[in-house]
Amino acid sequence: MNIRLYNARVLTMEMGRDIFNGEIWIKNDRIAYTGTDEEISEAGPELPHIKWDYELDCGGNLLMPGLKNAHTHSGMTFLRSYADGLPLREWLTQKVFPNEAKLSSGDIYELTRLAVMEYVSGGTTAIFDMYLTPDTIAEACRDTGMRCVLCGNVNDHTSSPENMAEEYERLNHFDPLISYRLGIHAEYTCSKELIHKVNSLVHRYRAPFYCHLSETKEEVEDCKSRNGITPGMFLEGVGLFEYGGGVFHGVHLSGEEMYTLAKREVSVVTNPCSNLKLASGIAPVSKMLEKGLNIAIGTDGAASNNALDMFREMYLVSVLGGVQDGNGRGVKASSVLEMATVNGARAIGLKDADSLAAGKYADIILIDLHQPNMQPENDLISNIVYSGGKKNVLMTMIGGKILYLNGNYNIGENPEKIFESCNNIAERILG
Amino acid sequence: MNIRLYNARVLTMEMGRDIFNGEIWIKNDRIAYTGTDEEISEAGPELPHIKWDYELDCGGNLLMPGLKNAHTHSGMTFLRSYADGLPLREWLTQKVFPNEAKLSSGDIYELTRLAVMEYVSGGTTAIFDMYLTPDTIAEACRDTGMRCVLCGNVNDHTSSPENMAEEYERLNHFDPLISYRLGIHAEYTCSKELIHKVNSLVHRYRAPFYCHLSETKEEVEDCKSRNGITPGMFLEGVGLFEYGGGVFHGVHLSGEEMYTLAKREVSVVTNPCSNLKLASGIAPVSKMLEKGLNIAIGTDGAASNNALDMFREMYLVSVLGGVQDGNGRGVKASSVLEMATVNGARAIGLKDADSLAAGKYADIILIDLHQPNMQPENDLISNIVYSGGKKNVLMTMIGGKILYLNGNYNIGENPEKIFESCNNIAERILG
Repeated sequence: MNIRLYNARVLTMEMGRDIFNGEIWIKNDRIAYTGTDEEISEAGPELPHIKWDYELDCGGNLLMPGLKNAHTHSGMTFLRSYADGLPLREWLTQKVFPNEAKLSSGDIYELTRLAVMEYVSGGTTAIFDMYLTPDTIAEACRDTGMRCVLCGNVNDHTSSPENMAEEYERLNHFDPLISYRLGIHAEYTCSKELIHKVNSLVHRYRAPFYCHLSETKEEVEDCKSRNGITPGMFLEGVGLFEYGGGVFHGVHLSGEEMYTLAKREVSVVTNPCSNLKLASGIAPVSKMLEKGLNIAIGTDGAASNNALDMFREMYLVSVLGGVQDGNGRGVKASSVLEMATVNGARAIGLKDADSLAAGKYADIILIDLHQPNMQPENDLISNIVYSGGKKNVLMTMIGGKILYLNGNYNIGENPEKIFESCNNIAERILG
Repeated sequence: MNIRLYNARVLTMEMGRDIFNGEIWIKNDRIAYTGTDEEISEAGPELPHIKWDYELDCGGNLLMPGLKNAHTHSGMTFLRSYADGLPLREWLTQKVFPNEAKLSSGDIYELTRLAVMEYVSGGTTAIFDMYLTPDTIAEACRDTGMRCVLCGNVNDHTSSPENMAEEYERLNHFDPLISYRLGIHAEYTCSKELIHKVNSLVHRYRAPFYCHLSETKEEVEDCKSRNGITPGMFLEGVGLFEYGGGVFHGVHLSGEEMYTLAKREVSVVTNPCSNLKLASGIAPVSKMLEKGLNIAIGTDGAASNNALDMFREMYLVSVLGGVQDGNGRGVKASSVLEMATVNGARAIGLKDADSLAAGKYADIILIDLHQPNMQPENDLISNIVYSGGKKNVLMTMIGGKILYLNGNYNIGENPEKIFESCNNIAERILG
């Protein structure tokens, strides 16, 4: 398939490259060429004569890399708007775990497809997903066309290191859209024995490692009582961060933990909506940036958000920084957009999907600039971060396939059928 | 004009009335009838035979009262994404005031039309607007079909009590869509002499009074240094709240001020996005609710937000409460939705636009439930507040006229022309 996206403004997110008027050519699942209108017209007849399978007039709107949702639990969509208004521990033990125990893998397939609809209609082209049954998430993503990095979910109650090793070897070869990383749910849901077993896997595969970390003050205090040390330093002491990786939330990281994670090239995935809703706090993003940490952004699951909307997250990453530091500077819009694209791709091990350079995956979104929230164009990037929203997403392409265009889905299933099954699941489980 | 909105779910926001399947009939600018499908089919042939000028099949989606943006400065759209990352005082004196001084009334007309596009495409059906030239705002709103309550903007530099008195008498009779209330910019931008003159007007007209109040700590401390008293108590001492009214922001109100404002039936309009972005702080909404205050919600201007998106504001009012109190309860979704509709209408003196009862203004929006962020339907109101967004707005009707439908505007002007003039204004003034 040869696809041409033309009459566009292009934000490649390549270092040092400004927004330009131009076009993008796609061959199969990769970007073949990204160039300015001038470059194309200068090259003229010397350009290879390409037969286009599909051409999209972008109407002067903005092509940019798709957003990377670096921490989510897609299968939690059945809990959207269920049990709002609780702090994390109570919410998790009383409302989440008991209901998740009733899910079948077929349920998770459907619930993940619902999440995929929300991702692609909101401009997200890759997710980093930790949930109960990686196989069914992988199938749901392959079948819909979603790019997905799965994360092991080892803890005392569900998955095991043996499962994870098997999944690691198998799911990393399942489909070009899917990859798999090693991880545990969190220090506080895993026995020491379990953590050491996972550490052996990390070293066996020389693989990056991921987990929830320092989401609440309570988590940190409990770990200090149990181990005499913060959870990040505990995991570091075991050796889990030797090959990098990432931690989710990081709301209450100590200076020592930030220093250590930065040194280990471990990314921090911030989840502002979820941290507000569950009253976990506000992550010190500006401070983490100063320490040289790679910051990515995630939505967390629909149960604690309740949307899966990377635009809302981007806005909050920026403005919460300002109110936290009290100086109103916040986190610069350009930094936030990097977090949601380039840094997100780096955090989850998808460097081939970080920018719109030739050779990268064709994971591209088209942003409507002809809506009032994007006018006037004083600063396009500020407009995206501070004023943009999923309403501005006209088109979402993943691996060269358009999954969403002008309100219509191309995900191998009728949206109404997905809504119906998810309502049935919610009704069956939540009553 | 007789309009019928049918095949809908209806959330009237009338006290004690649940969501039902039904329809709404509109005669000219008011709601003539709101009923369930059952009531209509039972009444059968006895129903008056109405010739419909227009019928809209709502596709099973949700009709609800339009959102009330109870504090905005529409003309500030030219400053969107200009001078981000500054705290309030510096931003206001160095970036806002000098550039506003260069605006013509024609500019404000265009900039207000841009804001109206954002309001109606985002489900907002009424605004409470304080800006430089009330006449041009009134014209822009009349010409586009936007319902607008104007607010006097007296301060030491621009408008005067004499102007405001004249505007009060004239603009309250300008057009059914437009009304006008008395107000000053803020205690800190008005001399005592000026404030006393405005107080005379408040008593002459027995009118509610509005102003910015306690937006920043600095404002409160400065007032205490100057007057030995907080700004709210200072204005109360003058007598300005005798006939009720409202204050904008209220981030740092004292307990005494909350008590006094509640007693005077003065509403507080909260503006979470702006307060975060300008690092003013987080308003104690839960505490104000406990004190019996009527809380409404506003976006503030596009310069400090940068969107004019009531969905984003609703989300933040709820979740910021949770993180502030540290218990995760937040402000209940149903309370937040009341703030954005019924309480907002009450705050700005538009009781005829607060619900979808017969006799009220036909200020109605249609919310698309067939999008993934609104599924499953565990709780429709939580879905709207925690997960909803302007992408869910299918239709916006004000005074019986549809201004926005499925992405198309009916505001008396081509959107592209409005974008072009606003870009020209921004370029001329900001360079």
